[in-house]
Amino acid sequence: MKLQTASVLLGSAAAASPSMQTRDSVVIDYNVAPPNLSTLPNGSLFETWRPRAHVLPPNGQIGDPCLHYTDPATGLFHVGFLHDGSGISSATTDDLATYQDLNQGNQVIVPGGINDPVAVFDGSVIPNGINGLPTLLYTSVSYLPIHWSIPYTRGSETQSLAVSSDGGSNFTKLDQGPVIPGPPFAYNVTAFRDPYVFQNPTLDSLLHSKNNTWYTVISGGLHEKGPAQFLYRQYDSDFQYWEYLGQWWHEPTNSTWGNGTWAGRWAFNFETGNVFSLDEYGYNPHGQIFTTIGTEGSDLPVVPQLTSIHDMLWVSGTVSRNGSVSFTPNMAGFLDWGFSSYAAAGKVLPSTSLPSTKSGAPDRFISYVWLSGDLFEQAEGFPTNQQNWTGTLLLPRELRVLYIPNVVDNALARESGASWQVVSSDGSAGTVELQTLGISIARETKAALLSGTSFTESGRTLNSSGVVPFKRSPSEKFFVLSAQLSFPASARGSGLKSGFQILSSEHESTTVYYQFSNESIIVDRSNTSAAARTTDGIDSSAEAGKLRLFDVLNGGEQAIETLDLTLVVDNSVLEVYANGRFALSTWVRSWYANSTNISFFHNGVGGVAFSNVTVSEGLYDAWPDRQ
Amino acid sequence: MKLQTASVLLGSAAAASPSMQTRDSVVIDYNVAPPNLSTLPNGSLFETWRPRAHVLPPNGQIGDPCLHYTDPATGLFHVGFLHDGSGISSATTDDLATYQDLNQGNQVIVPGGINDPVAVFDGSVIPNGINGLPTLLYTSVSYLPIHWSIPYTRGSETQSLAVSSDGGSNFTKLDQGPVIPGPPFAYNVTAFRDPYVFQNPTLDSLLHSKNNTWYTVISGGLHEKGPAQFLYRQYDSDFQYWEYLGQWWHEPTNSTWGNGTWAGRWAFNFETGNVFSLDEYGYNPHGQIFTTIGTEGSDLPVVPQLTSIHDMLWVSGTVSRNGSVSFTPNMAGFLDWGFSSYAAAGKVLPSTSLPSTKSGAPDRFISYVWLSGDLFEQAEGFPTNQQNWTGTLLLPRELRVLYIPNVVDNALARESGASWQVVSSDGSAGTVELQTLGISIARETKAALLSGTSFTESGRTLNSSGVVPFKRSPSEKFFVLSAQLSFPASARGSGLKSGFQILSSEHESTTVYYQFSNESIIVDRSNTSAAARTTDGIDSSAEAGKLRLFDVLNGGEQAIETLDLTLVVDNSVLEVYANGRFALSTWVRSWYANSTNISFFHNGVGGVAFSNVTVSEGLYDAWPDRQ
Repeated sequence: MKLQTASVLLGSAAAASPSMQTRDSVVIDYNVAPPNLSTLPNGSLFETWRPRAHVLPPNGQIGDPCLHYTDPATGLFHVGFLHDGSGISSATTDDLATYQDLNQGNQVIVPGGINDPVAVFDGSVIPNGINGLPTLLYTSVSYLPIHWSIPYTRGSETQSLAVSSDGGSNFTKLDQGPVIPGPPFAYNVTAFRDPYVFQNPTLDSLLHSKNNTWYTVISGGLHEKGPAQFLYRQYDSDFQYWEYLGQWWHEPTNSTWGNGTWAGRWAFNFETGNVFSLDEYGYNPHGQIFTTIGTEGSDLPVVPQLTSIHDMLWVSGTVSRNGSVSFTPNMAGFLDWGFSSYAAAGKVLPSTSLPSTKSGAPDRFISYVWLSGDLFEQAEGFPTNQQNWTGTLLLPRELRVLYIPNVVDNALARESGASWQVVSSDGSAGTVELQTLGISIARETKAALLSGTSFTESGRTLNSSGVVPFKRSPSEKFFVLSAQLSFPASARGSGLKSGFQILSSEHESTTVYYQFSNESIIVDRSNTSAAARTTDGIDSSAEAGKLRLFDVLNGGEQAIETLDLTLVVDNSVLEVYANGRFALSTWVRSWYANSTNISFFHNGVGGVAFSNVTVSEGLYDAWPDRQ
Repeated sequence: MKLQTASVLLGSAAAASPSMQTRDSVVIDYNVAPPNLSTLPNGSLFETWRPRAHVLPPNGQIGDPCLHYTDPATGLFHVGFLHDGSGISSATTDDLATYQDLNQGNQVIVPGGINDPVAVFDGSVIPNGINGLPTLLYTSVSYLPIHWSIPYTRGSETQSLAVSSDGGSNFTKLDQGPVIPGPPFAYNVTAFRDPYVFQNPTLDSLLHSKNNTWYTVISGGLHEKGPAQFLYRQYDSDFQYWEYLGQWWHEPTNSTWGNGTWAGRWAFNFETGNVFSLDEYGYNPHGQIFTTIGTEGSDLPVVPQLTSIHDMLWVSGTVSRNGSVSFTPNMAGFLDWGFSSYAAAGKVLPSTSLPSTKSGAPDRFISYVWLSGDLFEQAEGFPTNQQNWTGTLLLPRELRVLYIPNVVDNALARESGASWQVVSSDGSAGTVELQTLGISIARETKAALLSGTSFTESGRTLNSSGVVPFKRSPSEKFFVLSAQLSFPASARGSGLKSGFQILSSEHESTTVYYQFSNESIIVDRSNTSAAARTTDGIDSSAEAGKLRLFDVLNGGEQAIETLDLTLVVDNSVLEVYANGRFALSTWVRSWYANSTNISFFHNGVGGVAFSNVTVSEGLYDAWPDRQ
């Protein structure tokens, strides 16, 4: 222990052993260099990096989001998540901004039953299920370990039902065995979990199902074959039986969409697959079919039981039936490019829900992405006990079909195996219209984020290398920064890098910039945190995500599409949104209290024009009822 | 408590409370009338009715026999049975007479694992299974109650594997889920248990299976449809997967074979189905296919959770394939007619086994029938705690195809829906040859039973009503009585009843006789036990089983087939065998020490000639190693 060199001032309970100290017994000075944080008392870093406007439990570890639904009885939207590896906790929201814990923040379903002696994994909810009550179809776990890189223990994962009759505070397991007692016959699966229930009239029609039949995809894959989604159909009104309809989608082991540029890896195993259908406004049961999936990948050679790469992808596809029904991707991308972003779960949020009634929003599909707090438990030395919470959900995102008109019909637009596709072309104008997945912060959430004090930084053009401080910076580490960056045509393929430095002080800064050479948004975290210099497990590596800025025609003029950036900084959580179709989230664990400055950043290659630069301070407290 | 009127002399520990007394602390006088036996100290009746030559555990409740196999490594035959509702115990034999407990008489597999938190039901063994070791496929139970008369709780019964690597003393469950995780899709079963593994080249050929493929039938049925055997086929060399081949046999709910005369009821649910193939010598893989089943029946109206009738049947059938494979009965009968006889389990005993090597027997199919000790737990007031053991297995039986030649070709022989069938006819002689299931005490067992002191009672003809004492009777309640009874042609259809009184004294007697009016062997127990007059739960009802004595040609003379009787009395266990094709077993719980006399019995209608009347005394101790 080198506390004498550190910023920790022990309070009155200093004589007690560190492990006995409460968080109140230690005062930390964020104006001096940090010690090795893992030497601090448990709980002492609880507030240090805790976000304000995000969904996370009162304490402990958050895992995959799941169990979302709109309660037909109340109109409240329920947002759930794995909690402490001991089941699923849940909260309600009537505005997609503030949340109320259910069951005092404890789990609404825990493992330990006959079907799930070892664990409860992700589940999804039929809002009007058994007896008209919210009914959870979840993965009941009997054996561990489970990992795509090792032989699968038969019976490890089954799918069981639980019903809530108390408004979602408790989901009571049916007193019976699983409703899906195992994978299809003799399938040597890599996983068989995360059942996602949905309705889809296109499938109803193709499969001659009754209207409003429920389906479920179960995520996993087959050893030696590759990742897959297993499709099932509701068989009876009690949801007791689910008819297997085949691997409606499967990919070869460790293959990619296209060359892997735009959507990473199909990898070795699928997790947390959601299926839904969208139009340009949001959810539309007759719309284009999308899925979001987490893919479990690895550098080679594979290390047993280690998933070193987690890609959080979306995929659009066509559904057809030739004997069995199949899903064929036509575009795919990242739902979030962050290394720790994973396991998204979404749900239809109907226009009749409380949030939508208040905001006037149409039917939407709202997705929450998980941001692992400890590199998927690989961050050795991370001060988990000191922080006493790990991970968060990212802000709720509205998904829609996004159309990009007036794109110059060139190779940049026509690339295949991409995260967009050409939907029409205008030969006389020399343009095409593109389609991709639109990803944006839920409108109510964004409005709440922007509801605090805001100020505008004058736009400017930078042509030389430099870091130009804002005239005014936020006073805290809770803000939204929005800006538009325009680049000359010469930027294409150049070495230009331009963006912002945030969370900046003399000791620390994080740089977020667009880099033309590889069409990427980069989050340079090499100087993000003084704590990374003293404490293992605080990641300083750069984050990167691909965003192609197309050539577009604006009033007859060809130009590079403007970069439309929104950065949400919620203490240590950074979410970068761009152009309605890009998201990258990561941890930025700055240490110093005064690391709140913002600067323009440019590397001097070519020029950039910043405009509409706005900062909204404060964010909002997502948990007004918590003590 | 009316101990003052009773025959119980309390010993030195009399001052202790009854529940604290050991069996040694009480001396019971079997020369005076019994008290209400349920008032006696626990264990005090342990020896009273305990059989000597039968298979039963050192103490406690015996249930279904199962888990039999010949260990390829030792040649020993293993005989198992449910024990105390807490798993399966097992013993070995090298002679089908004496047995050695495995695991000190404790269970070799117990419930409480992930797959079987509630119970372990019957299983059967692949002798050269996983890694060449004896491998048990058994029913792992997760939910109770289970009964054909109530809705089935999904997942209650699954089929799991356990392997023994210590000579059968312990079967270690595979650390995985069930290999048959549930009934076929959306089957609303009445039961799904008692997997019986077998090999059959006829099925191999019909189904284009690899040679020596293992099959399993699982017993049960479907609600609203009827009882059934579900057929599965081994899919892989690790026995991990079993391919469902259909309900190869099913019957309508509560239907019967023929009019129900010869084989009782198919009833509401099948249990403990065995499948095997026989010729006239014993087991032959290419022989005629038989099954034994327990059927769960009920008087009407059905009382929920009560099986008031348990029929222990055998069925012969043909196997055919028309799309799926099916089993079609061509004859059926009772494997044992006793009310408490049930749940038989057999196994191939190869000629290379130790018992067969010593006896020179060919390949055989040896079946053990269970004799419930308390009317399937319905005997209210039975002094279970006083006895400290409940039930037994019956003597091992060799099964074969039995041919009955020179039967007069008349309606008696030609009855359809019977427990025999005509296999050939000789028009000129006016005879047919019949075929049925041959049921006899295993040859080694029978030889051992007859190895004690024996004496012959002179044959005699009785023409008038009377009970004629033997000149010599056994000194104990452990003996075998053999005799042949010949009847005149006029006996057919008459009121003639003739047989023996056994276990007789001035206070008690049991009459076993053949009754022509309904072609039945009757065990009249109305005067069997003085204890039945003081103690509830000691059943005095008559037992009855059908045996048709055919008209046969003997040297050109037509006569009624001779009744060839063998009675085994092993204290309270009575097994009645007749004509190589009939068995009826029951409890005869005589009380008085001197109830050992035997008499001829005749009711005076017509005449009967007794011949070859022999008594062998003493039986043998099946458990020489027990203390």
